[in-house]
Amino acid sequence: MRELDIIGKIQQHLTAYNEKVICGIGDDCAVFSGDNGRPWLITTDTLVEGHHFDLSWHPAYELGCKAMAVNISDIAAMGGLPVHATISLTFTKDTEEAWLDEFIRGLAYMHHRYNINLIGGDTVAGERLSITVTLLGQAHKEPVYRHGAMPGDIIYVGGPLGSAAAGLFLFQNHRDEIETLKDEYASLLRHHLAPMPQVELGRALADSDYIGAMQDISDGLATDLAHIAKKSAVQAVVFEDKIPVLPEFTRLCKRYQLTATELALGGGDDYLLLFTVRAGREKEVERLARSVQAMAYPIGLITEGSGVMLKGPTGNLTDISFRGFEHE
Amino acid sequence: MRELDIIGKIQQHLTAYNEKVICGIGDDCAVFSGDNGRPWLITTDTLVEGHHFDLSWHPAYELGCKAMAVNISDIAAMGGLPVHATISLTFTKDTEEAWLDEFIRGLAYMHHRYNINLIGGDTVAGERLSITVTLLGQAHKEPVYRHGAMPGDIIYVGGPLGSAAAGLFLFQNHRDEIETLKDEYASLLRHHLAPMPQVELGRALADSDYIGAMQDISDGLATDLAHIAKKSAVQAVVFEDKIPVLPEFTRLCKRYQLTATELALGGGDDYLLLFTVRAGREKEVERLARSVQAMAYPIGLITEGSGVMLKGPTGNLTDISFRGFEHE
Repeated sequence: MRELDIIGKIQQHLTAYNEKVICGIGDDCAVFSGDNGRPWLITTDTLVEGHHFDLSWHPAYELGCKAMAVNISDIAAMGGLPVHATISLTFTKDTEEAWLDEFIRGLAYMHHRYNINLIGGDTVAGERLSITVTLLGQAHKEPVYRHGAMPGDIIYVGGPLGSAAAGLFLFQNHRDEIETLKDEYASLLRHHLAPMPQVELGRALADSDYIGAMQDISDGLATDLAHIAKKSAVQAVVFEDKIPVLPEFTRLCKRYQLTATELALGGGDDYLLLFTVRAGREKEVERLARSVQAMAYPIGLITEGSGVMLKGPTGNLTDISFRGFEHE
Repeated sequence: MRELDIIGKIQQHLTAYNEKVICGIGDDCAVFSGDNGRPWLITTDTLVEGHHFDLSWHPAYELGCKAMAVNISDIAAMGGLPVHATISLTFTKDTEEAWLDEFIRGLAYMHHRYNINLIGGDTVAGERLSITVTLLGQAHKEPVYRHGAMPGDIIYVGGPLGSAAAGLFLFQNHRDEIETLKDEYASLLRHHLAPMPQVELGRALADSDYIGAMQDISDGLATDLAHIAKKSAVQAVVFEDKIPVLPEFTRLCKRYQLTATELALGGGDDYLLLFTVRAGREKEVERLARSVQAMAYPIGLITEGSGVMLKGPTGNLTDISFRGFEHE
């Protein structure tokens, strides 16, 4: 069984909604009516030891931050502000009190940073550490969906890509040298351990009326942009030479002979915003991003058609929809 | 580490709430403001294979029902109606498609039965099957809390106690004979596999204004009533000869020489409502229960003091606060 098969089965049996649901399964968050008030957003994510994190290099504090960040990022991707959270923690007989203290300090940092209320949860014993956070947020005006991209829109990302994937590469392949590498590649390592969601940018963009579609990059640009293309019934064309990366990302790729494009487009866990901007509004949007201490990098265009194409330096087009990009 | 220690640590660092939170951690659900509308209720529960269920006897359909039921019961215990759910499913390499189909059919049954929208979720691979449901509900009028019991109130339960614990006893100890036992003890087995939450009763009671405190029985009466006593700063006195049990429960205890009181008061997973009724309102409340096809059994009294006392047939008092009752 694959994840998508299970979701397909659930959608087949369980998505007959009543009138309170504005948007169900299939976007960053579900959206439901707040009666007379603003709509609510809800998202949930589970991190399982050995699958989503490795305790041998993931410090407890950073894991606490990340467990919240991945959910906050979903709220940000619809232009919302996070409000209430619940956490369900499966701990094991090996879970130590000192570890737990640090983990909770990490959670608390994110809660205070984003003014979130932890209002409920569950703690259960199990064989593997597992963390499920459910987060509720509220949209300021209308939520921004994945289905709003139109031909002519410019595709933007909220920061340099591939940093988290590069950090993970170092932990997985050069663990022994990490002490000597950690200063040179600090941003990459930090991005893997405790990414920071782009809440202020998401909200500013949602308020601007210049945005078509938005989502966060969690599975890699090639996959996440394919969601926007599919939901909006358009094609996305990404220019290879426009993909923003950090200088230390480029250094790392040279040093270990990695294909930079592959890592930047196929690597996940970036938790940056990916959005389309109406033609002619680029300057306003870039100014808006700077006003909230964020960046907005144009990387491509929305056209008629379907799927995600990568346009190389010679003009050659490669279909990279829904997959980790393999460079030729 | 024990569960209570972890919750204590979380409360120490993470329960500074903003004005949107009406009630945080420490009741059946958290309660938060619905802006201009009715307050929202939220609850989350995780069921882990090997800890909360045993796949060798728990059919997938019934497990799907139970995963929803334990959460619905929390909403019912505050007098609310369930509205929206998310589910996070950790599946394993052994999870079969046929199993999943049945599990989802069970979820879907509960969703249709209670008009709940499944609006989001996450599916992840792991080593152990684990199910986390987060459920949102809305109170009709004011939610009913654990802290509202007053001296003079009569303690009620919404049905016969110990059925689920008795069913679990049969599965754990007489698995080989279950085919021959299953007709005689059908209600007990069913109560363990797929308890039905008392939503209609909870709502009718919450609307009545005759109720002091309410919660559901998930950890056994001795523990759950102790929560009400502690939160309300009162003592609860339970009359041993008033504890309602099913005839087949009594037969089972005789057959296997089990102490009925111990099993009825200390066994968990009943998911019946436990509530206190203002003195003089017993007849109205019993009539109300019958009007929604439920029962309401008076089992004791709220007095001044603290803790939970069991009053035996000779008038002897035993403190049973927060523990599986051990009969003398």
